[in-house]
Amino acid sequence: MTNGGFTVLKQEGRVRLGELRTSHGRTATPAFMPVGSQATVKGISPEELVDLGAETILCNAYHLYLRPGHRTIEAMGGLHRFMGWSGSILTDSGGYQIFSLAPLCKVSEDGVTFQSHLDGSLHHVTPETAIEIQEALGSDIAMILDECLRYPATREAAEASLRRTNAWARRCRETHHRSDQALFGIVQGGHYPDLRARAAAEVAGIGFDGYALGGLSVGEDKATMNHAIEMAVAELPETAPRYLMGVGTPEDLLEGVSRGIDLFDCVMPTRHGRTGWLFTSFGRLLIKNAQYAKDESPIDPACACPVCRKYSRAYLRHLFLAKEMLGVRLNTLHNLHHILQFMRDLREAIQQERFPAFRTAFYAAREACQA
Amino acid sequence: MTNGGFTVLKQEGRVRLGELRTSHGRTATPAFMPVGSQATVKGISPEELVDLGAETILCNAYHLYLRPGHRTIEAMGGLHRFMGWSGSILTDSGGYQIFSLAPLCKVSEDGVTFQSHLDGSLHHVTPETAIEIQEALGSDIAMILDECLRYPATREAAEASLRRTNAWARRCRETHHRSDQALFGIVQGGHYPDLRARAAAEVAGIGFDGYALGGLSVGEDKATMNHAIEMAVAELPETAPRYLMGVGTPEDLLEGVSRGIDLFDCVMPTRHGRTGWLFTSFGRLLIKNAQYAKDESPIDPACACPVCRKYSRAYLRHLFLAKEMLGVRLNTLHNLHHILQFMRDLREAIQQERFPAFRTAFYAAREACQA
Repeated sequence: MTNGGFTVLKQEGRVRLGELRTSHGRTATPAFMPVGSQATVKGISPEELVDLGAETILCNAYHLYLRPGHRTIEAMGGLHRFMGWSGSILTDSGGYQIFSLAPLCKVSEDGVTFQSHLDGSLHHVTPETAIEIQEALGSDIAMILDECLRYPATREAAEASLRRTNAWARRCRETHHRSDQALFGIVQGGHYPDLRARAAAEVAGIGFDGYALGGLSVGEDKATMNHAIEMAVAELPETAPRYLMGVGTPEDLLEGVSRGIDLFDCVMPTRHGRTGWLFTSFGRLLIKNAQYAKDESPIDPACACPVCRKYSRAYLRHLFLAKEMLGVRLNTLHNLHHILQFMRDLREAIQQERFPAFRTAFYAAREACQA
Repeated sequence: MTNGGFTVLKQEGRVRLGELRTSHGRTATPAFMPVGSQATVKGISPEELVDLGAETILCNAYHLYLRPGHRTIEAMGGLHRFMGWSGSILTDSGGYQIFSLAPLCKVSEDGVTFQSHLDGSLHHVTPETAIEIQEALGSDIAMILDECLRYPATREAAEASLRRTNAWARRCRETHHRSDQALFGIVQGGHYPDLRARAAAEVAGIGFDGYALGGLSVGEDKATMNHAIEMAVAELPETAPRYLMGVGTPEDLLEGVSRGIDLFDCVMPTRHGRTGWLFTSFGRLLIKNAQYAKDESPIDPACACPVCRKYSRAYLRHLFLAKEMLGVRLNTLHNLHHILQFMRDLREAIQQERFPAFRTAFYAAREACQA
């Protein structure tokens, strides 16, 4: 099945292996997209991202609109050239950031007026300007402007918000014209399964190059999130890529893939890297702990990343306690490798038609760690 | 002329080209040693240091004694293995840091009692323990413990301090026994030319593998520093390497080399990198300046470093204003490249017997920039 830039190569129940193509290359799916909100994945160079196997990264239109400005990036030849990244870029429209970072924000049918978290200046963004900003940035995939509710939202608020987001989705679809840029719709609906289904059906009716699920992993329990995913995915076309925004842990990725999700992004590997919270095959490792003071072993003996091949826990702990930048950088490299390797393993399992066994083994290993 | 691990390959007046050998490799001199006080050159990986052409780096025994502790590093197989650096390492004894960083410090003939700047704990370091710490760290070159005076010091204070430093130098020489580690003496004497000469003659009399000039570039004017260098160098053996500690700007390096200095270290390229103060062939460039907001050119069009080959001033300015770690890292890489390339050019000029012309061209270019 091929739809524009996306091909499903293999399918096993809901689980699928695919390929997303943009003018900046191919991305094997299911894929995890490292987050580089401000046109940089914190501490990591583009060359390192290539070495880690990242194919698409996420940048944030809200951040880049405020600083350095989308027109500046356009004048510098677009986002890829500006940041020296030749792979694919998905830009989030910034809906989530407007509603979570701006000190003041006021929504109307027209759009949203908000105060910059940087300098308090007032801004008005509409579905049309959200597209204009992303077209100026020149990302490979743009997202519609959506309204993001705080959790828990009442059913009435969720319904009103869904109506507004879908009206905005239509306006985004109409105004978008860059032929070298895909446009993804966003399914909202809070934690109400029927609203998720309705939102998905409506967004699919408008017709986008791909479909994202927004407003999940915001405080609801896992069962609620997974049910919302199922309800939405059932209404989305099989031929288009599906993207679960802002998610998540390896478990979340596995559960998302199990339900037909193709794309993920999350700040977790990078943010955890900065706080010394490291992913391993045997659960998390907090590098600051005193038990690692004279520990010569790598973070994870089962890991083949450049950090685990060279550095000891003792050294990484020292760098962390000394607040040395290299520590953050090495921790982040390791965490990104862990998640990207997890996705490679997962794709291989789908390719070899053993995803159910992969899933079972994952939970067995997890239980063994916690035992 | 060869003396232990040092060979003078070529000499032109006071200016010399040499080679310093340790069990971790060769260092072409005159050399600049990047500073990695806490067992990391801030933000830069060992692989990047190799790519930049660094051959010897400097670590700090005061910092590493306090955290993570020299015995921890010894247990981890020594400093090279701990930090993943296979080139040479010179450790400063920490004299300068004790006198500049410690909130309290009290000197006696025996040694110095000081309070840790990290946790206020009390410590006593003697010439013997300073050597013990550096032998445990396993650096290639250890430094004697010296007393560092604040500038300006009275003649009486400078004389008393010189006597003490030289007594400590003798004790360091006697207690040092690691055959795979060189030991350098330190010439003090404040800004008094005759004291510098006397100190140098006395330290040379004790006999070390190399000689450092300490307590310079601490506030005195350039002429005073240069005169102090001349007075000291005249008393030092021609066959041993000479190291001007904590210096400096390209101009300082040039003037030091002109006076027979072989080794330098300074935090300037790394510290300036963090504040966006960039070295260029046309003088300094402050990356935060608004004039670079839409400037597509590299930091220095004449520079061949990986940063100048790939990134624009506009992007580096954005990273700096957004306080993004990658900005610090790229700025630091550029600054280190600039200084290390300057030393390569300078060595080539000595090799080709055109150092005087190199020096003249340097000042002519500098004047052209300031005109």
